[in-house]
Amino acid sequence: MKHLTIDELTGLLTRILAAHGAAPGVAEVLAQRCAACERDGAISHGVFRIPGIARTLAAGDVHGELRHEVEDPAPGVLRADAKGGFAQPVFEALRPRFVQKVRDTGIAVLAIRNAHHTSALWPDVEPLAEEGMIALAAVNCFACSLPFGAKSPVFGTNPFGFSAPRADGPPITFDMATTAMSHGDIQLAARDGRAVPEETGTGRDGLPTTDPQVILDGGALLPFGGHKGAAISMMVELLCAGLGGGALSLETGSSSHEGVFPSITGLTVIAIDSRHSAGGSFAQRAADLVHLMEDAGISRLPGQKRHDARATAAAHGIPLTDETWLSLLALEDGRRGS
Amino acid sequence: MKHLTIDELTGLLTRILAAHGAAPGVAEVLAQRCAACERDGAISHGVFRIPGIARTLAAGDVHGELRHEVEDPAPGVLRADAKGGFAQPVFEALRPRFVQKVRDTGIAVLAIRNAHHTSALWPDVEPLAEEGMIALAAVNCFACSLPFGAKSPVFGTNPFGFSAPRADGPPITFDMATTAMSHGDIQLAARDGRAVPEETGTGRDGLPTTDPQVILDGGALLPFGGHKGAAISMMVELLCAGLGGGALSLETGSSSHEGVFPSITGLTVIAIDSRHSAGGSFAQRAADLVHLMEDAGISRLPGQKRHDARATAAAHGIPLTDETWLSLLALEDGRRGS
Repeated sequence: MKHLTIDELTGLLTRILAAHGAAPGVAEVLAQRCAACERDGAISHGVFRIPGIARTLAAGDVHGELRHEVEDPAPGVLRADAKGGFAQPVFEALRPRFVQKVRDTGIAVLAIRNAHHTSALWPDVEPLAEEGMIALAAVNCFACSLPFGAKSPVFGTNPFGFSAPRADGPPITFDMATTAMSHGDIQLAARDGRAVPEETGTGRDGLPTTDPQVILDGGALLPFGGHKGAAISMMVELLCAGLGGGALSLETGSSSHEGVFPSITGLTVIAIDSRHSAGGSFAQRAADLVHLMEDAGISRLPGQKRHDARATAAAHGIPLTDETWLSLLALEDGRRGS
Repeated sequence: MKHLTIDELTGLLTRILAAHGAAPGVAEVLAQRCAACERDGAISHGVFRIPGIARTLAAGDVHGELRHEVEDPAPGVLRADAKGGFAQPVFEALRPRFVQKVRDTGIAVLAIRNAHHTSALWPDVEPLAEEGMIALAAVNCFACSLPFGAKSPVFGTNPFGFSAPRADGPPITFDMATTAMSHGDIQLAARDGRAVPEETGTGRDGLPTTDPQVILDGGALLPFGGHKGAAISMMVELLCAGLGGGALSLETGSSSHEGVFPSITGLTVIAIDSRHSAGGSFAQRAADLVHLMEDAGISRLPGQKRHDARATAAAHGIPLTDETWLSLLALEDGRRGS
């Protein structure tokens, strides 16, 4: 087992992505997100994703430069066409302008289309909450989810994320696939030979299965919470494809590269300046709510597991198995020598 | 069986509510919402609610006048203190000003606190979508929901609603309790002696039950979709109590009046002007999505059942059982003579 600091891991991932075709600023943003996910124990968006991203970059399915065009149609609205690049570097490039809009109008929406979103959503919203904003984010992606009554997949895993400032602790954050399980977690379960819970997905034959590989081999995921989760998934489509102007999940292809699905879709973020909450008391009220949740015995506060993993990583480093560590070195060296 | 036009039903309900202490403008708004729910087959928010609302008004637990105070802290933010009155008349009073903010900035948020919300959320958001806005709404209410690991209720049924314009049909709308079932539907099941599905709620002893009366007698509802639904319920708390400045679900009492729970909490609405979608194409893209959903065989489009009921009511009137009809007349007459 190897233990790396966040800076060491970010540096290594930056070099790998740059070696496979990402421009310097792009490689660094992707590496930061990926390293943060690994550090926080969100491993389905951690280094596990790096080989696939590298292959996709090398194949040119997603380009590695920042080529986006910005549209500014209203005081509280910002849009961008990412032109087939990664969503996160575009988001980072637009963040100061977006935050200024939130400060100026009290609420603003950012919609990025034609973008490949490679990471979790919490790294998009949590930094906004750290700056005092209440933030919602949504991404649609290739169709793999079979909602109520459908005979073929309609929605993507269409994650929905939320983060809000809290007076006496880190932001309170959730980040959920609107499918019963995220696609990355299905892939991890398949890799590790673990069954997934009932009502997670179906096989190619439309029948329920707990075998993740059967789900991946032409099957489909199910929405979380039945038709209610499917409705939230539909809202994600409308906020991303409808508002931002990108592809619907059903209109985007998925890559033939093993383990990677470069959906060229949309990222939409809504942020509200918490200074405009009644009495400016938002962060304290969020803290009050968390205390009431704790008093009621809630054992799983949203984001708690991530923050625990983050503290452990700060003390002892980010753990990587020897196999993962060697594969990352090979990925760095392989391209360097090619 | 009696069949009424929407105007006849709205008129009768207005007279009942006015007779029990609602000011004329307040009575009419509440009656319109209630009649629209009955017409659309959303009967858990239909005339079923009227006796409870009348009792609450008569008892003075919710006052029947418009006494709200408005706060305008930023171009895209509007807040109001409803001062313990009903949410919907305040919403209607502020709607023109809120819509103007959405037009001016492209997105705006309205947060009403200290309000009793007596109806479904779709009547709040659907009219905004009919005017070209993408609208989200949330209401928190008295604590009755037992999230993951909690030993006592923490959240309310905390509904979350969404509506968006669609090019070739009525707005696409959903309105869901973030509990497995709404409180009104539990009450209806108990009234009619129907069992509720598994994983809907628990009894006072914390054990699962399918008996709605056991849930109502000191038991609790469960969130829809496990910890993910609970996270959405938590977001509703933060958007309502945190942003608007009202009570958290756990801080509000519920009435001792049978069948009515006048939680004095918050209503928060976010609306985006769809003219600022990429290419102004939002409504067409929403229509595209609905067609793709239909092609995939989805049998339950959000809002479809309501629109079918609405069409039937337009053709044949709104059906009321004789028992319901007579009880409404008694409610009107009883107060008139008192």
